[in-house]
Parts: sequence; structure tokens; C-alpha cells
Amino acid sequence: MDIQDYMTTLGRQARAASRIVSQASTAAKNDALNRIAALLRERAPQLLEANAADVEAARANGLDAAMIDRLTLTAKGVEAMAQGLEQVAALPDPVGEMTDFKRRPTGITVGKMRVPLGVIGIIYEARPNVTADAAALCLKSGNAAILRGGSEAARCNQAVAACVREGLVAAGLPETAVQVVDTTDRAAVGALITMPEFVDVIVPRGGKGLIERISREAKVPVIKHLDGNCHVYIDEFADDDKAVRIADNAKTHRYGTCNTMETLLVHVAAAPRVLGRLADIYLGKGVELRGCDRARALVPAMKAATEEDWGTEYLAPILAVRIVDTLDDAIDHINRWSSQHTDAIVSENHTRAMRFIREVDSASVMINASTRFADGFEYGLGAEIGISTDKIHARGPVGLDGLTSQKWVVLGDGHVRS
Amino acid sequence: MDIQDYMTTLGRQARAASRIVSQASTAAKNDALNRIAALLRERAPQLLEANAADVEAARANGLDAAMIDRLTLTAKGVEAMAQGLEQVAALPDPVGEMTDFKRRPTGITVGKMRVPLGVIGIIYEARPNVTADAAALCLKSGNAAILRGGSEAARCNQAVAACVREGLVAAGLPETAVQVVDTTDRAAVGALITMPEFVDVIVPRGGKGLIERISREAKVPVIKHLDGNCHVYIDEFADDDKAVRIADNAKTHRYGTCNTMETLLVHVAAAPRVLGRLADIYLGKGVELRGCDRARALVPAMKAATEEDWGTEYLAPILAVRIVDTLDDAIDHINRWSSQHTDAIVSENHTRAMRFIREVDSASVMINASTRFADGFEYGLGAEIGISTDKIHARGPVGLDGLTSQKWVVLGDGHVRS
Repeated sequence: MDIQDYMTTLGRQARAASRIVSQASTAAKNDALNRIAALLRERAPQLLEANAADVEAARANGLDAAMIDRLTLTAKGVEAMAQGLEQVAALPDPVGEMTDFKRRPTGITVGKMRVPLGVIGIIYEARPNVTADAAALCLKSGNAAILRGGSEAARCNQAVAACVREGLVAAGLPETAVQVVDTTDRAAVGALITMPEFVDVIVPRGGKGLIERISREAKVPVIKHLDGNCHVYIDEFADDDKAVRIADNAKTHRYGTCNTMETLLVHVAAAPRVLGRLADIYLGKGVELRGCDRARALVPAMKAATEEDWGTEYLAPILAVRIVDTLDDAIDHINRWSSQHTDAIVSENHTRAMRFIREVDSASVMINASTRFADGFEYGLGAEIGISTDKIHARGPVGLDGLTSQKWVVLGDGHVRS
Repeated sequence: MDIQDYMTTLGRQARAASRIVSQASTAAKNDALNRIAALLRERAPQLLEANAADVEAARANGLDAAMIDRLTLTAKGVEAMAQGLEQVAALPDPVGEMTDFKRRPTGITVGKMRVPLGVIGIIYEARPNVTADAAALCLKSGNAAILRGGSEAARCNQAVAACVREGLVAAGLPETAVQVVDTTDRAAVGALITMPEFVDVIVPRGGKGLIERISREAKVPVIKHLDGNCHVYIDEFADDDKAVRIADNAKTHRYGTCNTMETLLVHVAAAPRVLGRLADIYLGKGVELRGCDRARALVPAMKAATEEDWGTEYLAPILAVRIVDTLDDAIDHINRWSSQHTDAIVSENHTRAMRFIREVDSASVMINASTRFADGFEYGLGAEIGISTDKIHARGPVGLDGLTSQKWVVLGDGHVRS
């Protein structure tokens, strides 16, 4: 079958299914999620077998160790997938929420109803758990989904897809509510992102290259997550212990996550108090430090930072360090270099802290907390489909609400406009 | 000066100004708006003179009567512009609103802050009032704006722009917070919609062709308003008098607006009760009727409708009429043909009315009210920058809130993630 025809068929089926799942009861959606979870547990041996075949093929194709690591599914991973589905089932259903109804001077009553977006296309790289996670979030929010996983995980993705289909059917929902693209042909992605008649929004999950390409070529809106070049600013009025604890955690809790700090900014008055302590911690954990001249004067073990460092998301045990003279300089640095993902201030001074969160134009701004908290679970969303660095629709962690929007409802009693 | 360089300069200036207006006090923004209103009134003679020159040139270029009509500014129009600015000044400031702060199990407190989008590019056709309206909405919502009006209105737009600049400066705000593109070169539009580093969102206002072209070519998100193919469905359980009043108003109150009804759907049991009465009204007002066979059997003066009629936004005294057997058929027709702008049901039956508003996937859904109410002023937004037919970010009338988004705020006390 021609790839364009195949994708058109998926699109048409998704559009039809979306009308049904948009109206499905919370009970039916939760029933499907719980059944899928049970099926995943029941078929863990087959999932692991399919994954092993994926991993073997990936090794034969010479994929690097990090990629193999992300691809590999364990028994614990299957259990985590199942639990994830059950957690989404336990979340409140956002669909149908009616809010803000107010009587207008004309006599009509105007308010809003929360509704699904329709059909969501999700494109991701070789992580088997995304298939189950994304299916759960789309279904719970009343959307149909078309999922396109990395070709390296194809066998495992299809095994998960079979569980999803069976769970949907057992709950009385259309099996086409979640479709996993069953071809490794790259043209499938091109088709998926250029079918506005069938797909309402695209969520790409993966490396920057993938996301940039999709954003460039898509003919539908994209909820995208580009870099996480995050900052911690230690203010003159910081509590030193909090500063050290936060700057340590923000960098070293995990190196490869998008909410990891990549540049540490320190007020010139705070630097002598905290930079030595922090350098001991970082160097002890094997973090390479790259600093401005003034930072290097305090910590000679630092290498020299270049301008390129300010703009780099290392995703590695490397940290850029810069000393700034004022809060304004810190804010200017962040608004110039940050990827608008997550930035934090450490300060006991209320006015400075409030200025920071007002003036730093990032999806998440924090006072006296580690950037590592920027996460759907930590924020109470229950789960996340991704972290948006866009400025419209949804900023930061995107949960069930981010997969919905609000339509206007007008209640009249024969009212006409005069 | 090269057009690309010129637009880059405007973009850079807008980005810098956006940082300042995003932090400007409500008082300063309102002061600017009121000063601009005063300047418009003071310079009404010059504005009318500039507009007269635009109109003369447009006539010489052979523009059609409707276009000339939209282009023409009257003394009353200037006063309406000034009042519009004052009305926006009187609206609550959306910027800085902090909501939904909740303590999480980790001890952090997580909530949201409403913030401007940044820089908004607005592209519109020859309507002089849009320059003042759009400037006001962008400024009040803390955004910088780059406005590109139709070349036919260039003289008048620049005269309005001068008032805006002077008002901004008098209020202590940067004059580059609102910039009106001062070239009629069409390449300016191409540049404006492809500068993601300087422009955060594009709002095109004008004909479908303009909006489709911009949506296709833009490299930044577009808040767009395409067709308004709106429906009224008269249910079996409709109150006949309300049905006639609403169907009359939805079609004949104004023919050229996007919230005007273009197709009337009537339940087969209601048709004998209301269709004759409505046909008398429509034909008496010179509305051409195009119906399905069953409708024509009841009203022989109707012409035959073709499938093309169901998909057409006439913007004219023409109405398509179709008789349907069930509520489901009505919903199916609407979800198949509607432009998802505004659709209404007339029914006294609660269950049917609720099914209609839940299942019709349009930006505005109404019970027993005329589609003509779909409007930012009628909904209480105070003003609107346009009516979105998109499904993400904002659906329906877009007011000040639609020109903002929410960032996440995390408040800690030295909290780190474990």
C-alpha cells in the first residue's frame, strides 16, 4: 500500500474515532486504561521478548550505548508502564468541565466548556514506554491519537499497541482511537504532519534535530519542546546553605534531563561565600566547570568559558559559571541565553525574588527551589506529554489540560442580537 | 534600505520594547491609551484628510465599492476609535494575575502567572480602525506590536501611528512598543511572518486568501480566523416563536459578518410549523433560499441546493436550508460542513440541547440564542483582536487573555528534588 494512502486511512479512522472518544464516559475511558494496564502485565514476557529482538537489531546496526539504554525495556519498566496507565485512570477527567458562566447585559449567559483537541499525532524516538504513556494521556483527555515511534523500537511498540487495541475494544471504545503507525518508512512522518484535515496537533518527543525538522515542515500546530538551557541565579541576599543545596541538586541530581541547570549565575557579593563550597562539591562529583574570569579568580580549577558556553545545553557533567554585578545583569543574561524552559533565583529578598519571577520570560520560574522540579508529576499534573517551550497554548509541563481547549457556550431563551 | 534589514530593525526594536511593556504598570499603559485617544480626537481633521487621500487613490486604482466603503473613515469613525481605546483602558489588566497556587507533597508551592506573549505581528487589510484597536489590545496585554495594514490605507495608518507613538512617549513608554510598518512593499509581510526570534505570534485579519497564505508561510504560530460557515438547527422540540426569531436574526441582522447563519437545519417534525413562516420573512427581506428536496416541497419558492451550498460562507442574502430526520443527523451535518465557528440549537428539550453543545465541535455553541452573539464584546471580553477558528490556545473571540499565556511559578524554601 502506498504510504500516503496508508496514512490517510489512519487519519480518517482517527478523525472518526475522535468523535466517539470525545463523548466517551469517564468510566469507559478509565476501564480501557485499567484493562490495557492488566494486559501489559499479563504479556510482560512477550513485550520483553519483542524488546530483546529490537535491542539485538539495534546492536547489529551499531546504535550507541545511550540509545541502546533508552531502548531497553526491563520487567520493572513494564510494571512502570502499567502503573502509569493506572495513574492516568485515577486522574480527574478534564473533558466537559464547564466554568465561568456569567450573565451578560443582553440576557444571554456565556461560559466555557473544556473539550478535547481532536486527533493528536505523536512522533517519538526509541523509547518503548512512550507508546503506553502517550496513548493513556490522549485517551483520558478524549482525543484520538496516531503514534509514530522510532523504528528501532518497532517490535515492542507493536506489542504494546496490541494491548492498547484490545483494552479499547474490551471497554467498548473504537480500537482506532489509538493507532500505532505500522511501518518504518520515514515518509509516514512527513504525511502525518501535513494532514490538517485529520490531525489537529503534533507533539514531537525526541532530539532537537527531530523537533526542529518537524516544526519546520508541519502544516498543523506543534506543541514543541526544544532545549532546556536552565539557570540558577544565586543572589546577594541568598541563604548560603539553600544556595549550595539548590545549585548542587539542580546540576548533579541528573545530568541528562532538560530541567538540569546548565549555567550558574552568582552575584558578585555572594560568590566569595558560596562558589568555593560549590566548586568542591562539583569537582568532587566530576563536574567540569567553565567560568568567566572573575569566577576563575575565585576557583582556579575552572576552565575558561566562551560565549558559546552560555548558549549550550550540555546534558552532561559540565557547568558554566558566571559572576554578575546585579539582579538586572542576571535577568539580562537569562533572557538573552535561556531557552525559556526553567530558571530559578535563590534569594531571601522578597522584592528581588518577585522581580526575578516577573521579568524572567521562561515557562517555569522558581524561587528557592531546584530547577529539577520542572516536571508534570512534581507540578501535580499527574503525568505529562512533554514540556512546552512555546509561548502560546501551554507553557512548561503539558498534562491532560494541555491536550484540551475550551469552547464557548452561550445559553439563551430565544435571545437575538439587536 | 533593504526591506529585510528594515523589518529586522523593527523586529529587534519590538523585542527590546516588549521587555519594557511587559513590566509596565497598568497605570502607565492606561495613561498611554487615554493619551492616544485624546490625540486621535484632536487630530481628527488631519486623519480625515489622510483618509480622503487614501480613498481618492483607491478610487483611481479602481478598487470596488465594498473595499472603498471599508476604507472610508468618518468623523464618527474617529470618535469610535478614540472610545475604543478608552474602553480598553477601562478593562482589567490581565498581566501578572497569579492563580492556582497549591502546596505539593514535596513542600514546594506551584501556581501560574499570566504573562504577555511578547511581540505580536498583525497583518490586516484596508480598515483604518484596526491600527488603533490592535495597538490598544496589544499594549494593554503587555505585548509589543508590529502592525502591517493594507497599502490602500497607508496615509491614514501612518497618521494614526503618529498619535500612538506620541501617546506612548507621553506616558513614559517606548515609542517602539507599537510600530506601524512604513512601506507598502509586500515583502514586508513575508519578512514579518518568518522572524521567530523577534515575533512570537501572528494575527492576520482579512480575507480567507490572505489568512491561508500567511498560515502556509509563517514560521511562527498564527492565531487565525478562517470561514464563518454557521448553522442554526431548529429541533423537533423547539419553541416555534423562539425558532423564528432566532433564525431570522441569525441570517438577516447583518449579511456580511462571520457569525451570520449560512445554513438552516430543521427537524422534519418542526419544518411544517416554522419553515413557511420563516420563508415569508426571508423572501420579504430579499433573501434567496436554496433548499433540499423536502424543504422545497414545503416552500416551492426555494431553489435547489447542491452539496456546494452546505460548504459555502455566502456573506450575502442567501441561505441554504436542509430538513433532517434526527438530532444526530443535524450534528453530523454540522461536524461535516461547519467551519467550527458558531452553531446554535433551538430546543426546549434539555437533553437534546446538552447533547448539541457537547457534540458540536465548534468554537461557540449556543442554545436558544442567535449566532450573531459570537463576538468579543457580547461575551464580555471588552474587545477582540479576532475570532479564532483554531483548536489550540484560544477558540472563538480572542480578547486580552488570548494575547497572554501562563507561566509556571514555583515557590520553595531551599527545596531540592530527591
